[in-house]
Amino acid sequence: MKATATFISTQKEAPADAEVVSHKLMMRAGFIKRLGAGIYNYMPLGLRVIRKVEAIIREEMVRAGAVELLMPVVQPAELWQETGRFQAYGPELMRVKDRHERDFVIQPTSEEVITDIARQELRSYKQLPRNFFHIQTKFRDERRPRFGVMRGREFTMKDAYSFDRDKAGALKSYQTMFDAYKRIFDRFGLQYRAVAADTGAIGGDASHEFQVIADTGEDDIVYCPTSEYAANIELAEALPLLASRAAASQALAKTPTPGKSTCADVAELLKLPLAQTVKSLVLATDELNAKGDIVKSTVWLLLVRGDHDLNEVKAGKVEGLKDGFRFATVAEIEEHFGCKPGYLGPIGLKKPVKVVADRTVANMADFVCGANEADFHFTGVNWGRDLPEPDLVADIRNVVAGDPSPDGKGVLAIQRGIEVGHVFYLGTKKYSTPMKAQFLDENGKAQPFEMGCYGIGVTRILGAAIEQNHDERGMIWPVAIAPFAVVICPIGYDRSPEVQAEADKLHDALAAEGIDVLLDDRGERPGAMFADWELIGVPLRVVLSDRGLKAGTVEMQGRRATTADIVPMAEVVARVKGHLAA
Amino acid sequence: MKATATFISTQKEAPADAEVVSHKLMMRAGFIKRLGAGIYNYMPLGLRVIRKVEAIIREEMVRAGAVELLMPVVQPAELWQETGRFQAYGPELMRVKDRHERDFVIQPTSEEVITDIARQELRSYKQLPRNFFHIQTKFRDERRPRFGVMRGREFTMKDAYSFDRDKAGALKSYQTMFDAYKRIFDRFGLQYRAVAADTGAIGGDASHEFQVIADTGEDDIVYCPTSEYAANIELAEALPLLASRAAASQALAKTPTPGKSTCADVAELLKLPLAQTVKSLVLATDELNAKGDIVKSTVWLLLVRGDHDLNEVKAGKVEGLKDGFRFATVAEIEEHFGCKPGYLGPIGLKKPVKVVADRTVANMADFVCGANEADFHFTGVNWGRDLPEPDLVADIRNVVAGDPSPDGKGVLAIQRGIEVGHVFYLGTKKYSTPMKAQFLDENGKAQPFEMGCYGIGVTRILGAAIEQNHDERGMIWPVAIAPFAVVICPIGYDRSPEVQAEADKLHDALAAEGIDVLLDDRGERPGAMFADWELIGVPLRVVLSDRGLKAGTVEMQGRRATTADIVPMAEVVARVKGHLAA
Repeated sequence: MKATATFISTQKEAPADAEVVSHKLMMRAGFIKRLGAGIYNYMPLGLRVIRKVEAIIREEMVRAGAVELLMPVVQPAELWQETGRFQAYGPELMRVKDRHERDFVIQPTSEEVITDIARQELRSYKQLPRNFFHIQTKFRDERRPRFGVMRGREFTMKDAYSFDRDKAGALKSYQTMFDAYKRIFDRFGLQYRAVAADTGAIGGDASHEFQVIADTGEDDIVYCPTSEYAANIELAEALPLLASRAAASQALAKTPTPGKSTCADVAELLKLPLAQTVKSLVLATDELNAKGDIVKSTVWLLLVRGDHDLNEVKAGKVEGLKDGFRFATVAEIEEHFGCKPGYLGPIGLKKPVKVVADRTVANMADFVCGANEADFHFTGVNWGRDLPEPDLVADIRNVVAGDPSPDGKGVLAIQRGIEVGHVFYLGTKKYSTPMKAQFLDENGKAQPFEMGCYGIGVTRILGAAIEQNHDERGMIWPVAIAPFAVVICPIGYDRSPEVQAEADKLHDALAAEGIDVLLDDRGERPGAMFADWELIGVPLRVVLSDRGLKAGTVEMQGRRATTADIVPMAEVVARVKGHLAA
Repeated sequence: MKATATFISTQKEAPADAEVVSHKLMMRAGFIKRLGAGIYNYMPLGLRVIRKVEAIIREEMVRAGAVELLMPVVQPAELWQETGRFQAYGPELMRVKDRHERDFVIQPTSEEVITDIARQELRSYKQLPRNFFHIQTKFRDERRPRFGVMRGREFTMKDAYSFDRDKAGALKSYQTMFDAYKRIFDRFGLQYRAVAADTGAIGGDASHEFQVIADTGEDDIVYCPTSEYAANIELAEALPLLASRAAASQALAKTPTPGKSTCADVAELLKLPLAQTVKSLVLATDELNAKGDIVKSTVWLLLVRGDHDLNEVKAGKVEGLKDGFRFATVAEIEEHFGCKPGYLGPIGLKKPVKVVADRTVANMADFVCGANEADFHFTGVNWGRDLPEPDLVADIRNVVAGDPSPDGKGVLAIQRGIEVGHVFYLGTKKYSTPMKAQFLDENGKAQPFEMGCYGIGVTRILGAAIEQNHDERGMIWPVAIAPFAVVICPIGYDRSPEVQAEADKLHDALAAEGIDVLLDDRGERPGAMFADWELIGVPLRVVLSDRGLKAGTVEMQGRRATTADIVPMAEVVARVKGHLAA
C-alpha cells in the first residue's frame, strides 16, 4: 500500500486530557480521534491494528472449535430482566427506550442473548459441547472514562460463551479457551501472564485474567518466578508468615505515642520493626428488614500486620461479611472503641465487636496495637493473655513481594499488568437456571447448561500493546499487529525517478511475498518522514536514497535499533523476511 | 470446513410473522434468529454471507480510493444539533441519555461525525479529494419493522462520504463511487439496476439508487429496454402523451353518472376510453405566522388523466407546493367545490383554487371530469372554451409502462426492485455549511466542502439476494456471496470408511484450490441432507456414495439444475472450478 492511499495525520502534541502514554501516542499518531468522553473514532491506522487483532482472535477461536455469529448491539430488556441484571447492573448499563417506550439496553456483554439462543437451539446433550463467539461493539457508561481506549465507553470486544452438559465438560471447554487465549496472546507478540482471578459478583468457580505486562498497568499481578503460580492481587493467597505463635516474652504496657496514628510512625517512635505492629480496620454489616430498613448493625475489627494492606475482596469472603460490608462510621467507632480512629486496637472495647485476625497476625506475639485511647498504644500484646483469641482467623491481606508462594515453590514477585482478556467458568446459577436454559440428557431429563464466558477487549489490546512497547519516539508494534510490518521510506520519491522506480519495485516485491508493506510516497522530507513512522511504530524501516542506490544498497533499521544496517539491494527482500520472522 | 465445525439448524416451518420469502427462508435456514421486533441475531451461516458481502464492498471501496475508518455507534447529540437533524429526524432516530443526562443518538448514518472529522483533519485543498468509509452497525427505530432484514431496526451498512473542493470534483467523486458500486453489484452476481433517484429532503442534485431486481420489491423501477435510461418512479419524467391540444369537437354536457365516483366507473358507464377522463386531486398549503399558527390556506386542484396516478414527489416540486402540502380536508373541499369528493372538477368552483394540470391533461380536448355536483360529470370539456387555462402545467404523474422514454430512445418498462445502495451528491448546504466544515483554497480562503454520501445496506443485500434468487426448495445463492460455494454430501459418511476417506480427500483438494467448500460430516440421511443444502442454497453439490465410488464417479449438481451430472472422480476438481467460474 502507498501512504497516499491511506490517511496519515500525525501531531506533535497530545491533547491535554491524555493522561497515559498509549492515549497520548494514539492521538498523536492519528490512530484514534475523540468524538465524546470515552468515545473514539478509529482512524485508518488504528483500524488496521484492530483488524489484525480481530483476525488473530478469529482464527484461534475457530481453531479451538468456537463458531462465530453476531448478536445485536441493542438488546431487549426482557432477557436482562430474566437474569435480574437489568435491575442489578449499575449505571454502566446504558438503558434506552424505543418509540413504543419499550426498554432496551446497549449491550455491555451478551450472556443473556446467547443463553436465549442456546435454550432455543441446543435441545439435546448430543449438541453439546458448543461454543459461540462474536466480535461486536460494546458500550459501558463508565462514570469517568479515561486513558483513551483503555477505559472507554464504546469499545470492541470478542466474547465467547460455552455450553456444556456437566461441570467436567465445562472445565474442559474452559481449558480449551485458556489454551486458545495463550495462542492468541503469543501471536500478538505481547508479554503477558495468565493469572488466576477472583470470580467476583458474576459467580462461578474458575477464572483467569490475561494481563499484558506494563509498568503503567492498573492491576497488580502476583507470580512466582520459580514456578507456574500467577494470580491477581485480589486472589493471591497470603500464607501466614509465622508458622506458629511464639511464647509471650514481654509484659503488656501502655505507651504514649502522641500524634503517631500510623503503624509506621509508631514503629519509628518506638524503634521497633514495622512487622511488630498490628493495624486495625473497622467494618460494619447491617441486617435489613423486608422494607430495607436497618434493624441491626454489627461492628467488625479486622487486624493485619502494620506492613500489610487489607484485601477487601478477601474480606468479603469471610463468614459474616459475605453478604456485603461497609466501613464503620466514626460514630460507630467511638461507640464501640471509646476512641477516635488512629489509636484503635482489640483490647478494652466498650461494646462487643467481631475480631478477625489475618493469618499472620494470629501467630504474632509481643505485638503493638492501638490502646483505644488517643495518643497511646499497647506494646507487648499477646493473644490469650491480654485479649481473647480472635473470633476468626482468615487470609484478609494483600500478598507482598517476598511472601512465600502458595504452591510452596518459591517466593512471590509482583508486577503491573493491564487486563485484556478473561476466561470464566460460570456454572449454571447465573444464567442457565434463571433463564431456564436447559437441554435433555440421555434419560430425557431437562438439565441446565453448564456455561463459561470468555472475553478479549479488542480495542483495549491497542492501548495495552502501546503501554508495553513504546519509547520517547513513539509506539513500537509487534509485527503481527503492526499497522504495517515494513515501511519503505524513499528519500526524494517526488524528485528522483530512480528512487521512485526502485521504491516501487521493492514495494511490489515485498507485497508479493505477502508482507504488509507501506511505501511512503508523500514526498516528505526525511526527518519528518522518519519521525512519523517512529511515532506510528512500524517495526521495520527500509530507506532508499540516490546515494545508496548508486552503491546498490538500502538502509534497514528495526524500530528498536539505534543504527541502520546497510543491505545490498539484492538481499533486501530476504533480509526483511528474516527480520520479520525473528 | 466441515459441517460439524459450524452450526447448521434448519426448520421445516417459518414463523407466522414472516411475511416475505426472504424472511421465511432466512429463518428456516437458520441464517437469522429473532431477538426483538426488527432485531436479529446473525447466526453462523448468515454471518458468513455478511462477511463475503462486506469483503467485496471493502475491496472495491479501497480500489476506488476510499479509506476505511470506524465511527462509533453511540454519537453525542451536539453534532446532530449543529445540522438540526437531532430535532428534525423523526422517531426513527433512537435517542438516549447517558448517566450524566447528556443526549446521544444511536447512529442511523454518520454524516455529522465524518463532517466533524473532515473539518478537523482536512485543512487544505491539497488534501482533497478524500473519501472515508466505514462498515458499522446502524439503528433506525422503524415504526413497523417487518420483512426480516429488509426493514429491520438494527442493521449493518457501509457508508462512505466524499469531500471535494468544488462541485466538479464532487461529481467526479460521485462518478467514481457510481462505478465502484457497479463493480460491487456485478461481483455480488445479482441482477440490479442503477436508477436515477429523487434527492428528497436531504437536498443535493445527483442521486442514484442501486436496485436489486425482484418481483417482490417495494420500489417501482422505470427503465427503457432500448436505451440506458433508468430512474425510480418518483423521479422518472412523464412526457406529455399528446404533442398538442386537438380542437374541441364536442359540446360541453352535464351527464348523470349516479354512484360512479371513479374515472374507471364513469368511463365504463359512458363507454368512453379511460384516457378520455380526468382525475381531480385536492391539496392545500398553509401560510404560518411566526408563532406557527395558520394565517392563510390555499386550496389546489391537481388534474391527472384518469388512467394515471399522482406522483407526490413531483407535486412537491411544483412552484407553490415546494414548502410542503397536505391533502385538503372535506370541509375545505366542500367550501371550494360545493360538492363532496367523488364528483370534483375544475368547472364551476365556489371559491378560487389553484389549478395544476399534468402535461398530458393540459393537451387533452373533449375530456370528462366531475361536475362538482353529486352523481354528475361533464363530458366534452375543453380548456379555454369551458374553463380557463390551468394556472400551472407540470409533470405531476407517475409514468406507466409504454410511456415514451424521456431520452427519446424508446418506451418505458417498469419492474420491481429492492433498494440496496444509494449514491448521493450532497453539495455544501446540508452538512458542511451548518457545521462550518471548511478547507483553505489556493488563495487561503475558507470554502465549505462539497460532499457526497454513498450507502450500501449490507444486511439488506441478503434479503434482496434471496428475494431475487429462490425457488420452492429454498435460497439460491450466487457463488460470490454464498455461505459456501460447494457442499460435499457423502452418503454414509458415518458408515463407509471409503466414502469418508474420499469425501475428506475431495474436501482437502477443493480447499487447496481456494474454494469455499463445506463437507457435510453430520451423517444425515440423503433426503434430509439434500433438503438442508437446497434450503441453504449452496450453488453446487457433489454427492459421494459407495456405489458411485465403485464406478469411480461422483454426482455433481448445480442448485438450479434438475438433474445431476455423473463426473469421473479424477475430473471433479476441474469440473467444480469450471462450474463456479461460469
